[in-house]
Amino acid sequence: MEVARLAGVSQSAVSRAFTPGASVSDATQQKVRAAAKALGYQPNAIARSLITQRTNIVGLVMGDFANPFYTEVLAALSVELQLRERQVLLFAVPPGRGVDELLPFVLQYQVDAIVIAATTLSSAMGWECHRRGTPVILFNRMVPDTPTHVVTTDNFAGGMQVAQMLAEAGHKRFGYIAGHADTSTSIDRERGFFSGLRSHGITTIQRHDGRYSYRGAFEAGIAMLSARRRPEAVFCANDMMAMGFLDAARQLGIAVPDELSVVGFDDIPQAAWDAYSLTTMRQPIDQMVASTVELVTKPADGARNDRATFTFLPQLVARRSARLL
Amino acid sequence: MEVARLAGVSQSAVSRAFTPGASVSDATQQKVRAAAKALGYQPNAIARSLITQRTNIVGLVMGDFANPFYTEVLAALSVELQLRERQVLLFAVPPGRGVDELLPFVLQYQVDAIVIAATTLSSAMGWECHRRGTPVILFNRMVPDTPTHVVTTDNFAGGMQVAQMLAEAGHKRFGYIAGHADTSTSIDRERGFFSGLRSHGITTIQRHDGRYSYRGAFEAGIAMLSARRRPEAVFCANDMMAMGFLDAARQLGIAVPDELSVVGFDDIPQAAWDAYSLTTMRQPIDQMVASTVELVTKPADGARNDRATFTFLPQLVARRSARLL
Repeated sequence: MEVARLAGVSQSAVSRAFTPGASVSDATQQKVRAAAKALGYQPNAIARSLITQRTNIVGLVMGDFANPFYTEVLAALSVELQLRERQVLLFAVPPGRGVDELLPFVLQYQVDAIVIAATTLSSAMGWECHRRGTPVILFNRMVPDTPTHVVTTDNFAGGMQVAQMLAEAGHKRFGYIAGHADTSTSIDRERGFFSGLRSHGITTIQRHDGRYSYRGAFEAGIAMLSARRRPEAVFCANDMMAMGFLDAARQLGIAVPDELSVVGFDDIPQAAWDAYSLTTMRQPIDQMVASTVELVTKPADGARNDRATFTFLPQLVARRSARLL
Repeated sequence: MEVARLAGVSQSAVSRAFTPGASVSDATQQKVRAAAKALGYQPNAIARSLITQRTNIVGLVMGDFANPFYTEVLAALSVELQLRERQVLLFAVPPGRGVDELLPFVLQYQVDAIVIAATTLSSAMGWECHRRGTPVILFNRMVPDTPTHVVTTDNFAGGMQVAQMLAEAGHKRFGYIAGHADTSTSIDRERGFFSGLRSHGITTIQRHDGRYSYRGAFEAGIAMLSARRRPEAVFCANDMMAMGFLDAARQLGIAVPDELSVVGFDDIPQAAWDAYSLTTMRQPIDQMVASTVELVTKPADGARNDRATFTFLPQLVARRSARLL
């Protein structure tokens, strides 16, 4: 290409110079910029996309911006894709609407792939994307019988591990604060937790709905912890709820972890804050994002029917909110 | 258009049916979808953009995903633009790099406008965008002598108001926890705070750097509050830092607000959490986003030199972390 020749550098150096964050020396950067300017070269990604049939745009469908876990995913995914010359085009599921309604708009933008986070889609819509040849990656959720890729934490295993740790530490009375009833994350974590407790002979578990929000879990906490026989160990389906629950315990003057153990899920940055020092099951965001990027950037090989599922085990991060062995 | 005719609805109903979140009845939605399917109509936003010279894509350049204030802005902006048939294409400033390096990549995507949040650009790059006819909106920062729009909170006035409230409530010794030294937000809040205190005859103010992070402010708090004559009233340049500072006070056993008043800036969702109950200056995100959307969506009128500046006053949200009159 002319720019490379005029700048006296390799084509790949030119490419790196036009990739944000890519490794390229300042000297090369300057040579390439000067050559591009002299030649009046202004890359047009949109026009190029009509030739290459690749827009280098990845649609990211978000259902919930309130949970810091998903904004962390959003940040990491944007940065990693950008390093590979792709940008994230953001779509928000309007409140009260499903992702199915939104996908036709996403497809209008000829995105190279669609990542769906913090919300889910129907099997029918999964097949529609498949028919059009647009890869879909479900992030942290699963839809059975649908031709999509899946990148997820093993939420069932995570819930089960929490149950075993709390039971083995000698707790007797248990509680669970659920997220939204229609999310596979909350359902799987609950199934794992209840199943793990059952294997320790525990079948009575207090359960409240925390709606995946701080305030919902705070209210659930006040109700659950004001009861006559309150639980000694409570698993909250995500960290935000665990923080609301801990603040309810604080308001009621219940000592954590002496009188009450609380465990969350996600390991959002706030979990490390001193006011909470939350023991939680960490989702390995970096690995999950790396797998997503791999699925987005791997060249289409015609074998449209291959579907990958990456499942990661969550990792215990032991802080001060739970008494464990 | 054919779809409207076949569906037996107005052209504007078809347009609404293809706009996520727009008001349209289920019946109309179904009629339009059926007609579009029968006609094999698949909107291609990218190809259309080459004709209309409008991609309906707005570039959003983010420098800092760690502050919940900016992820809230990101969420609100995505939702509001999407309601107006625009989508956000996300660009992340790589760590240690400036936004100037990134803008050529943003321009490659032929975005209709560029919103720059949580980072800043040079005057030279502002003029380059101007030359290309791409409107630039600086969100919550200003660059002098640059042809950009600005949507901002009056950070100086906010800092000054905090100073006056704390001085009038009878505090005598003051501290300030600064954000990044090169951000106009931190500089302006500090100037306002110091200026407000000066008008009350107070010129000695302890100052530490909190790097706009929870952990930085926690460490600054331990240092500042362990000193022999510690301050009675401390203004932190954002809420995240105020939370780190409050946790430092908690660790040192200093009673808030009896022995120490702490005020933040932003009113992020976590400021309302019971563990902090932070008194803060709220940035009116909804109004700021509405103004940004107005600037992005208003038709170009040829008068390229008009630049709008929207400045909003922050609003006091009084919770329990500060003793005020």
